Amino acid sequence: MKILECVPNFSEGRRPDVIEAIVKPFRERKGCALLDYRADKDHNRMVVSLVGAPDPIQEALLEASKVAISHIDMEHHQGGHPRVGAVDVIPFVPLRNISMEECVELARRFGYRYHGDTGVPVYFYEDAALRLERKGLEAIRKGQYEVLKVEITNPERHPDVGEPKLHPSAGATVIGARKALIAFNVNLGTADVEVAREIAKAVRSSGGGLCHVKGIGLALESRGLVQVSMNIVDYERNSLYRVLELIRMEARKWGVTVVETEVYGMIPAAALLDSASYYMQIAGFDPDQVIELRLLEMLEDKEA
Amino acid sequence: MKILECVPNFSEGRRPDVIEAIVKPFRERKGCALLDYRADKDHNRMVVSLVGAPDPIQEALLEASKVAISHIDMEHHQGGHPRVGAVDVIPFVPLRNISMEECVELARRFGYRYHGDTGVPVYFYEDAALRLERKGLEAIRKGQYEVLKVEITNPERHPDVGEPKLHPSAGATVIGARKALIAFNVNLGTADVEVAREIAKAVRSSGGGLCHVKGIGLALESRGLVQVSMNIVDYERNSLYRVLELIRMEARKWGVTVVETEVYGMIPAAALLDSASYYMQIAGFDPDQVIELRLLEMLEDKEA
Repeated sequence: MKILECVPNFSEGRRPDVIEAIVKPFRERKGCALLDYRADKDHNRMVVSLVGAPDPIQEALLEASKVAISHIDMEHHQGGHPRVGAVDVIPFVPLRNISMEECVELARRFGYRYHGDTGVPVYFYEDAALRLERKGLEAIRKGQYEVLKVEITNPERHPDVGEPKLHPSAGATVIGARKALIAFNVNLGTADVEVAREIAKAVRSSGGGLCHVKGIGLALESRGLVQVSMNIVDYERNSLYRVLELIRMEARKWGVTVVETEVYGMIPAAALLDSASYYMQIAGFDPDQVIELRLLEMLEDKEA
Repeated sequence: MKILECVPNFSEGRRPDVIEAIVKPFRERKGCALLDYRADKDHNRMVVSLVGAPDPIQEALLEASKVAISHIDMEHHQGGHPRVGAVDVIPFVPLRNISMEECVELARRFGYRYHGDTGVPVYFYEDAALRLERKGLEAIRKGQYEVLKVEITNPERHPDVGEPKLHPSAGATVIGARKALIAFNVNLGTADVEVAREIAKAVRSSGGGLCHVKGIGLALESRGLVQVSMNIVDYERNSLYRVLELIRMEARKWGVTVVETEVYGMIPAAALLDSASYYMQIAGFDPDQVIELRLLEMLEDKEA
């Protein structure tokens, strides 16, 4: 059975009734399961994680998107997170028995259908990008809703699907395919945010550190700690243990220690097994030795 | 859906045709899956790991046992591992949505049915033991097939099910319920087997070390290494990381380091996640964050 994850981001993090109305189709659609949803009031944004077979996921997405579009007016939307639309981003993530190529194909087909059903213009990003410069989300979202509204008429900012103008209230939607992303935070025993910033710079790829790692330094003021907050965008190429050990190493320069770490949201089993194998020096470890992963295969076979 | 593991041990590790005939019912029975089977020529023994729902597991077990009983003659069996019967031990292990109490109940009911179908006398052990002194397998298997054949007539060695005499070719079978057991080996960078023996003594519960840990020291002669070979009989009460770190600590006394470790056979996900969380200092980690474990729940719900 083909199973993918989808992590749609909606520009609503404050109104509980709207939030619940958006996630309702994910709860109710058979063949897909709502793993997690986190609404952030400051960001005025909600991140949803759902898994399931390709067809039910797409049906539920269309339904939820229509709810979001009918309730969210980007002309009056405010929030701390960059965004261009009511349904801001929809990434499809290959999980089991489905390739990245199939997810790209699916993202593009879904993009056309989504535009047809809603009238919202669509940009394709990451592995589904049609233009090289649109691989990164930042380029597509540059200047956010307010700027894109004007600049969309420039040919280099034309959408990939739809006329070169934003939907009057729902803006635009960015749809794509990418690998599973891990949100990994490391909290350090100091109140000096500069330490977290310097370490973030040392560890992230833009600073010359580890590939496939993005990161920033933040203060956790109420706790008197600082945090290196990261996204691991390809955990198969840079393991969590490598990221953590590099941070532990850099922190020594400041006489600072790691107080704790956080995995925020969902994580693929392989990312944790990989790090467990490293720390425990397990030779020749095979995920097929894990009872639950074999049970999952067994139940998938029955579904197929 | 209730899922249990069953790890039957058969006294055949040499004849490939007999081995394949025994595991055939596990491969073919719907509702149960053969995770692993390992035949050992020196031990002349095979350990099978299967998972599934209670009914199909029991049906497949009866079928496989009849094959084993018809091919194995304990009067001519030789092998390095203690044994009392052709079907030597059958432990039932609770995995998902089933309690230890239910497994005990199931083991006892199965024991009566097994004896009725095969005529082989049955002893109950571990959590399913009816007599306190039979909790440990060692007590039941004392002196092995050859001694039990004579001593079975003593009231204190009477079987729990059946007349006090062994089956003429298949001996007796020990049936029970226990927690999942992890076979965990730690290889040390020395050729001195005394080091492994001393460390095994320090770490195992019989030597005063960690509870729920059994272990012996062995030489891995072809590799010039030694091994602390362990069974963790309750991984929820003594985590792998604790066992490993105690060995690393003891090994320092001899100036010896851990070269690698091995997880032999199947392991529950929680045992590895627990150790990953420790080494990575993950605060508030919840197994529900692991995508595959949620997928498993989702598919189980569909089955229910």
